[in-house]
Amino acid sequence: MEEFFVSYAVICDDDEIEREARDLVLEQTVEVPESLITDPDIRERVVGRVDAIAPAGDRRWQVRAAYRTALACGQIPQLLNLLYGNISIKKHIRLESVDWPASLLDRFPGPNWGVDGLRRRLGVYDRPLLATAIKPRGASNQQFAAIAGAFALAGGDLIKDDHNLADCDLEAFRARVGLCQEAVDRANARTGRATIYAPNLSVPIEQLERRLDVLVRLGVGGVMIAPYILGLDALRGIAARYPFVLIAHPTFSGAYYRGAEHGIAPELAIGDLMRICGADISIFPHHGGRFALTPDECRGIGAALRRPLGRMRPAFPAPAGGMKLDRVASMAETYGLDTVFLVGGALLSHDGGVAAGATAFLDAIRAHFGERLETPQTDLPGACDLDGEPTRADAAEHLPFDPTAHAWAARPAVAYKASAELPFQGVARHELIGMHGEKTDFHLRYFEVAPGGFTSLERHHHTHTVIAVRGRGLLIQGDERRPLAPLDIAYIPPMAVHQLRNETDEPFGFFCIVDARRDRPIAP
Amino acid sequence: MEEFFVSYAVICDDDEIEREARDLVLEQTVEVPESLITDPDIRERVVGRVDAIAPAGDRRWQVRAAYRTALACGQIPQLLNLLYGNISIKKHIRLESVDWPASLLDRFPGPNWGVDGLRRRLGVYDRPLLATAIKPRGASNQQFAAIAGAFALAGGDLIKDDHNLADCDLEAFRARVGLCQEAVDRANARTGRATIYAPNLSVPIEQLERRLDVLVRLGVGGVMIAPYILGLDALRGIAARYPFVLIAHPTFSGAYYRGAEHGIAPELAIGDLMRICGADISIFPHHGGRFALTPDECRGIGAALRRPLGRMRPAFPAPAGGMKLDRVASMAETYGLDTVFLVGGALLSHDGGVAAGATAFLDAIRAHFGERLETPQTDLPGACDLDGEPTRADAAEHLPFDPTAHAWAARPAVAYKASAELPFQGVARHELIGMHGEKTDFHLRYFEVAPGGFTSLERHHHTHTVIAVRGRGLLIQGDERRPLAPLDIAYIPPMAVHQLRNETDEPFGFFCIVDARRDRPIAP
Repeated sequence: MEEFFVSYAVICDDDEIEREARDLVLEQTVEVPESLITDPDIRERVVGRVDAIAPAGDRRWQVRAAYRTALACGQIPQLLNLLYGNISIKKHIRLESVDWPASLLDRFPGPNWGVDGLRRRLGVYDRPLLATAIKPRGASNQQFAAIAGAFALAGGDLIKDDHNLADCDLEAFRARVGLCQEAVDRANARTGRATIYAPNLSVPIEQLERRLDVLVRLGVGGVMIAPYILGLDALRGIAARYPFVLIAHPTFSGAYYRGAEHGIAPELAIGDLMRICGADISIFPHHGGRFALTPDECRGIGAALRRPLGRMRPAFPAPAGGMKLDRVASMAETYGLDTVFLVGGALLSHDGGVAAGATAFLDAIRAHFGERLETPQTDLPGACDLDGEPTRADAAEHLPFDPTAHAWAARPAVAYKASAELPFQGVARHELIGMHGEKTDFHLRYFEVAPGGFTSLERHHHTHTVIAVRGRGLLIQGDERRPLAPLDIAYIPPMAVHQLRNETDEPFGFFCIVDARRDRPIAP
Repeated sequence: MEEFFVSYAVICDDDEIEREARDLVLEQTVEVPESLITDPDIRERVVGRVDAIAPAGDRRWQVRAAYRTALACGQIPQLLNLLYGNISIKKHIRLESVDWPASLLDRFPGPNWGVDGLRRRLGVYDRPLLATAIKPRGASNQQFAAIAGAFALAGGDLIKDDHNLADCDLEAFRARVGLCQEAVDRANARTGRATIYAPNLSVPIEQLERRLDVLVRLGVGGVMIAPYILGLDALRGIAARYPFVLIAHPTFSGAYYRGAEHGIAPELAIGDLMRICGADISIFPHHGGRFALTPDECRGIGAALRRPLGRMRPAFPAPAGGMKLDRVASMAETYGLDTVFLVGGALLSHDGGVAAGATAFLDAIRAHFGERLETPQTDLPGACDLDGEPTRADAAEHLPFDPTAHAWAARPAVAYKASAELPFQGVARHELIGMHGEKTDFHLRYFEVAPGGFTSLERHHHTHTVIAVRGRGLLIQGDERRPLAPLDIAYIPPMAVHQLRNETDEPFGFFCIVDARRDRPIAP
């Protein structure tokens, strides 16, 4: 059974390290004294193993523990328990690094967009991205929207809420976020760019889904969350079900990595763990600012977010905290191209205002890197979801089926093109109800997949409800293959990777019902 | 506007403390330099205030900050942001204490049961409670159930899972927890007592509600969660919606309170905050065990959980970690009557087994305190205490059609009564998608109308989309009669008077899709 290796720094005397190391792996796996483990099977399958102990200076040791990968259950809460659960309460044990096994990484999709996906959405290449924060708390919604709009007009890439911005109820949230998104939309319409706005989502757990739904409907592109407040698994859960660009904020996390003798190395706490949980961007305090990470720690975080890690997309480091114009050069050298520079106060306090400040920062960035702009790719039409233009207001009240043609005369198949990213083949789509002036909150479509054909392999926040009616097909969903026969019904939940295939010699036809207001599909 | 006071320990030189204190309150409220706050209203309503600075030893200072209570929004995530958000990343700032204002405390109900409520449920008075943990991970479900049953039979009060016990899926969870609860139920039936079992709920966020739902159905009395893994607000959210006795486990929390110069004082981190978020019991490492809290810190945690705090019920401290029989006396002196003694390894390793171990510990406790037993009162808190959100957790992903029964096994026909105003006849309805937790803006239903049957003649604002699939029917719409054959589609627009009839000798079946949010039908 597969093991993986986890390294800890431990401080103790020479004659204690053997026992300390042994106690550590027992605590993290069975939490009982060794003498109580009489079952050889538990000893083999469960109890952690001390793989190596190496001296690392005065009373300092590096302990390499080996844990069975299965103990993490492929779940973030249990993984955190295993890596640094009860031993977090012991003195002088610091979690230093993890050799992530591929089988564990494969359980977590990681960033939905990552560096390449975010660049495609923005159409910005060859330079770091520029982000700002809407602040200060207490300003009016109009003032916030003005900052967002000015920054977007000046060509800034990302706008996030200050992490202290909180809205006490859903309506206040909708009003504030709606105004900011409108300002960004207006700016984007003028510039032809695709600046993304990411509101803060530090809200009570019961309100998470409702607020996320509001954001989907407002057409917001990003979300910022604080994983050490809401839980790292909340970040993963949002990435698994929503198509937002996810920004992780480090508030409340500092206790984990402010000490050399205790806690979790920052490249793990706000590097690997943020990325594994799905952050496209991880914010952390730059060493030149008002927080006290070291240059090495900052470089380590940047490296962790972008290094090869299973099949996981690289994420952007976003150094922040006291960014100033004269630091752009040194930050560019520290972090390199695939970085988000997050500038807050320095923009707001710029003599010429936010727009002039953004321009100045962008100029400084371009001076180091150049810039290549392409058309932002906000749409990735897949087979399921390219909207046929509702040109005709011919709401149907009766669509008689023609069994000979196996079709509805008033709703011929719609022709559409696949994108390179979301290829499909042999798919005909009939837009039956909802796209021609019928008053519904859903769209009813009929798809027919020719022998050997398939829809795009894709995922999206909106769900599909499928009713098979002709021939036999196959629903690929994650690792599962589900056969579909006439009148079988399938529900495809949010963000589930899916594809419908026809591996028979006869046409495979199915109805598919989707919410009328829905997000665009993205590649798996 | 009300302020409340928060005390921090800060380490810095004499000539720095004024600026450090000022930076602290700015960081926690507006996160911009003071010069940028030009609006007097923001200065008044939002910016934190340094209320007092007092020397506290060599380079140590106590800074008392004053924050507007409204800034916390009455929400845990925002409260954590305000108390120790970004400054958690600064060196040498430790959150020491909070003078909780009543208006803030009133926003959080705190423990549902607390000390008195839990004693009533157990019928155990005048002595500390005895709890154990089911372990080690890797043992069989039968072995776990045997431990639970033996402990309950011996008169132990509470049984919790080891926090490493994880079940990789819902069925494994149901099987394991079900077996343990059955063992406890059998023991309770024999003893007449009401020993409570609390399974571990360290699960991915999407599974929380489903697992809680399983626990409700299994009749489980308690739940253990790890608030520093799942988020403190997850604890509060569960307390707000479920009637379980809630046990908070400190795994992954140690980084917050293992240093004197950084982090959060333990009486806050695992005292006040756990109680405010609804823990009835907060587990923490006893100073005599294998973890390294000091006696003063342990006493502080115990005091924080039980002292007067608004209208909040007192909670039980549960000192744990290396409990031994010979420590009962000293623990009794440290923590007093309203304490849960959590004994793990010492029970499992007792020469006479779990039952004899439990008896020995209970005898030792009784020797110090005596014991008064009354009939357990297992009644739940009043209906008003529970938010009553219906948890519908059986979202379907695949509903295979059974051609023989012409039905879907997981979605049997729903019986319903017609009103006198809207009579119908011979109609069976299957609620397929949208009414069982699937995330859709529509509902997919299947109706079958028996020979001679008909739906009500009615009208409503919401529209119907009908797909005929079995037999032949008739749509009456206004003055029109439209025949419906398989795969014919009908759209019934707003307020159109309509009825579906079967005038043949065979069943007539059709799908009907409606908006999830819809108005009630009215008579024509």
